[in-house]
Amino acid sequence: MKKVGIITKKGMPGAVNAVRGAVKSLRKKGFEVFVESELASDLKITGYQRNDIPAHAEMIIVLGGDGTLLHAAGLIGGREIPILGVNLGGLGFITEITLNEIPDAINKIASGKYSLEERIMLSARVDRRGKQVFKAGALNDVVIHKSALARMIEFDARVDRREVTTLRADGLIIATPTGSTAHSLSAGGPILYPTLGAFVVTPICPHTLTNRPIVLPDKFILEVSIKMGDEVYLTLDGQVGFPLKVQDTVKVRKAGYKTKFIRLSGRDYFEVLRTKLKWGKR
Amino acid sequence: MKKVGIITKKGMPGAVNAVRGAVKSLRKKGFEVFVESELASDLKITGYQRNDIPAHAEMIIVLGGDGTLLHAAGLIGGREIPILGVNLGGLGFITEITLNEIPDAINKIASGKYSLEERIMLSARVDRRGKQVFKAGALNDVVIHKSALARMIEFDARVDRREVTTLRADGLIIATPTGSTAHSLSAGGPILYPTLGAFVVTPICPHTLTNRPIVLPDKFILEVSIKMGDEVYLTLDGQVGFPLKVQDTVKVRKAGYKTKFIRLSGRDYFEVLRTKLKWGKR
Amino acid sequence: MKKVGIITKKGMPGAVNAVRGAVKSLRKKGFEVFVESELASDLKITGYQRNDIPAHAEMIIVLGGDGTLLHAAGLIGGREIPILGVNLGGLGFITEITLNEIPDAINKIASGKYSLEERIMLSARVDRRGKQVFKAGALNDVVIHKSALARMIEFDARVDRREVTTLRADGLIIATPTGSTAHSLSAGGPILYPTLGAFVVTPICPHTLTNRPIVLPDKFILEVSIKMGDEVYLTLDGQVGFPLKVQDTVKVRKAGYKTKFIRLSGRDYFEVLRTKLKWGKR
Amino acid sequence: MKKVGIITKKGMPGAVNAVRGAVKSLRKKGFEVFVESELASDLKITGYQRNDIPAHAEMIIVLGGDGTLLHAAGLIGGREIPILGVNLGGLGFITEITLNEIPDAINKIASGKYSLEERIMLSARVDRRGKQVFKAGALNDVVIHKSALARMIEFDARVDRREVTTLRADGLIIATPTGSTAHSLSAGGPILYPTLGAFVVTPICPHTLTNRPIVLPDKFILEVSIKMGDEVYLTLDGQVGFPLKVQDTVKVRKAGYKTKFIRLSGRDYFEVLRTKLKWGKR
Repeated sequence: MKKVGIITKKGMPGAVNAVRGAVKSLRKKGFEVFVESELASDLKITGYQRNDIPAHAEMIIVLGGDGTLLHAAGLIGGREIPILGVNLGGLGFITEITLNEIPDAINKIASGKYSLEERIMLSARVDRRGKQVFKAGALNDVVIHKSALARMIEFDARVDRREVTTLRADGLIIATPTGSTAHSLSAGGPILYPTLGAFVVTPICPHTLTNRPIVLPDKFILEVSIKMGDEVYLTLDGQVGFPLKVQDTVKVRKAGYKTKFIRLSGRDYFEVLRTKLKWGKR
Repeated sequence: MKKVGIITKKGMPGAVNAVRGAVKSLRKKGFEVFVESELASDLKITGYQRNDIPAHAEMIIVLGGDGTLLHAAGLIGGREIPILGVNLGGLGFITEITLNEIPDAINKIASGKYSLEERIMLSARVDRRGKQVFKAGALNDVVIHKSALARMIEFDARVDRREVTTLRADGLIIATPTGSTAHSLSAGGPILYPTLGAFVVTPICPHTLTNRPIVLPDKFILEVSIKMGDEVYLTLDGQVGFPLKVQDTVKVRKAGYKTKFIRLSGRDYFEVLRTKLKWGKR
Repeated sequence: MKKVGIITKKGMPGAVNAVRGAVKSLRKKGFEVFVESELASDLKITGYQRNDIPAHAEMIIVLGGDGTLLHAAGLIGGREIPILGVNLGGLGFITEITLNEIPDAINKIASGKYSLEERIMLSARVDRRGKQVFKAGALNDVVIHKSALARMIEFDARVDRREVTTLRADGLIIATPTGSTAHSLSAGGPILYPTLGAFVVTPICPHTLTNRPIVLPDKFILEVSIKMGDEVYLTLDGQVGFPLKVQDTVKVRKAGYKTKFIRLSGRDYFEVLRTKLKWGKR
Repeated sequence: MKKVGIITKKGMPGAVNAVRGAVKSLRKKGFEVFVESELASDLKITGYQRNDIPAHAEMIIVLGGDGTLLHAAGLIGGREIPILGVNLGGLGFITEITLNEIPDAINKIASGKYSLEERIMLSARVDRRGKQVFKAGALNDVVIHKSALARMIEFDARVDRREVTTLRADGLIIATPTGSTAHSLSAGGPILYPTLGAFVVTPICPHTLTNRPIVLPDKFILEVSIKMGDEVYLTLDGQVGFPLKVQDTVKVRKAGYKTKFIRLSGRDYFEVLRTKLKWGKR
């Protein structure tokens, strides 16, 4: 892993200085660095389009919050390049270190003192009149949601071609273990331990109150067909959006590739939960 | 109450026959009838614009589901004309009778054998840079919601000018007792007994899990200011939509007028809950 | 209000010194003080049985947490003597000041710089074969609960003699607005604003998932009849327990008296919610 | 599988006739039948203690509801004898057929037309001062619960010796996929697909509202240590009870054996959910 790409949160204040520091530390250790064009000119180095960076790199450092990291995971897709998430503010669910820990982290990586943690991703495709019209991957979640102005949507859910139910709701979240602590949790879903081979299907504001979150083995394929609903959208990791039409079918399954996080700290998953969910006291 | 307006669900199959029957029954009892233009020509009587009907009538019969009834309540607004809700399908939360019970209902009304049940309504107004840009009423609920493609919204809530909290969520529902069994219930809100002088503020998918539904006396004024969020909409009773901008303030209070339902059956509220929520067995 | 009773949490460390300080401050301002026997001997003053203190006092200072305050409210019952709650640890939902604020608080009270905040209480009675076998009041909640070893209980609920439903659950909480942030909140109930004229009925682990919390006007009487269940108990404010038998009927209504809290700080209710529920950040 | 034990719900009306019919059908097909003593005398055949039946049998027919079936699964324990669940009332979550389907079911079994469905079980043991004082298995759930009269309990949870959190709650449910639709669902837990290699840890009325259900891989060992709480009990499948003391540690892990259900009908799991949870309409 001698080629390192750096992806930075758009409009992040102090980005130039942060990246300059990281580049310096990386070069000192003999890494080749690939930086986005916006920052490269300030740093007087060659710049690359963000989307092209994963093609050049063997490892990606992400400066930003969980959102930027999700975006980077989407760009990396099937390349399975390890990601080091650097949080700018407080601790994130999936970011690993904070800004001032970068030099130390680079030293550790250079001397092989890290581990890789794999997380499953979801793959979602949309079929319209028998033809695939959209396909993309997600690390956190695939969400089907009505527009703010539309009434409820109605859809049929099937698992491995078996009928589950006809559901009327504001939307539906299909979340990986990684995404179980994000949107799905807010909608009433459970926390899934990161290594669990499963995804959770969580309805948003279901009309039928007994439509509860259901956790399925990740070998299953979930199919959702839109039966009714004027303006329905598919979003992946809260970032990529695609408008759905009545009779469209969304197929969600485990992706053929994983996201790999670089782990340095030995910070335990339950410690993250305790901090982020403020366990300890009410 | 000798002047009766009839409002019918748009595109309802069999509407002409249903209305013809109702008109016949009403005229036999000496009522003057006001019908929408679309149906009037078939019935060979004078027709009116739907929006104008409340101005002519002393009572409104609504043929449709709870949705059409909500729409009619909005049209009636401050006129406080009594409504008789006629459900086309199964029992509704707020409709009173079914189609074939119309003749009997008209007899009862003609001989004064009915009671009026009052329900509070909400009034919502939007202020933008100190100026009111929108105002309307709602019988069920006022909803502030992000678009399907947008990330979470952030807003400040105040009650009677006192700070409540800064909230990050997909949206916020302010529901009357009447609306407490609709969208708010799906979002995790409680049921409010219809005559309770209160409204419930229910967050939709709140980022902070301890942001729970809160029931407030209906003399309070709730103010919500949009702090962050690209595409945010205000909807009333799931029907009227208005796009909100950052820094807009939405003020929600009890309306100065009420909706009045004509009650004939003595059907008890808890019986409605048992039927609609399928209590009795799991 | 020149006669002040002091009630202290049992086994509270440092109680003698805390009470000594309070007694000194009170006497300086000309108050007559009534203290429990356990502490009185250390203070070399006349002591009283805890249960007798309200009969002597015109005001009660409670040193302890929300639990001790609930106990004191129960002792005071219909006497409606104002209570000043002093929290030993962090901020409580209903305690008003902390230990070191006592002298300042006494000065304010002596010079009339305080307000009284009234909270409704519940009255619960148990009828067995047509005869009343138990009666007591509660400031927070009345709970009907199965024993840990028993299976689910089944009971009929009626409101003002109208059937609500037959419920199968682990238990049922009837909470005042004051109690809505305690056990009921943990069981999924909403927050009720303190001045709301209502109580909330929250099922604990209901077999039927659509049995949701319901908020009722406080003029209603709730009747719960035990139909099935081996070991069922009634508890008030988590303190008083009474074993129920099959066919017993528990009647819960608003008590004829209120609890009066002395308010000094102008601390707003929403500020308490923000602090106790950790609103602000996830 | 030529030796069949029959276990019947205690006090079940019509048990003698039901068992007589089953015995007749079984013998016609050449099965040897083992029946409980209470019923055997009426049937004029040799009877056995219920607890001894699994030792004689290669297959168990259970007449009763899900409760009786859970009891039978507990008796069978590590023997892994296949169970055919016969429901007396409506459809159960885990029972397979109804009373009048017995003869047909026996024919199918005799001719090998059945499949076996394996379900994981939990094993719970209690350690007190370093010594094991209790051990048993559960098909549905292991529940730690305070008594009805006690205040909240406080316990520490660890997973594979890693600290999870200190929890204050009424109780804690550890449920298998099979048990996820029972008590855990009522307490707010998700549905786990039956073949998922996981269990769910669901708090009952947690003091900290962010203590949400968490789904863990079934290779993990959950350890719960009681820190505070006067009367705390451990129950398995709602049947076996054991009183816990402060400082006791409960260890819950996947049992080394499974429950095997005989499946005849091809009834799909989602069909069971739709029926039992009344999906389809609100």
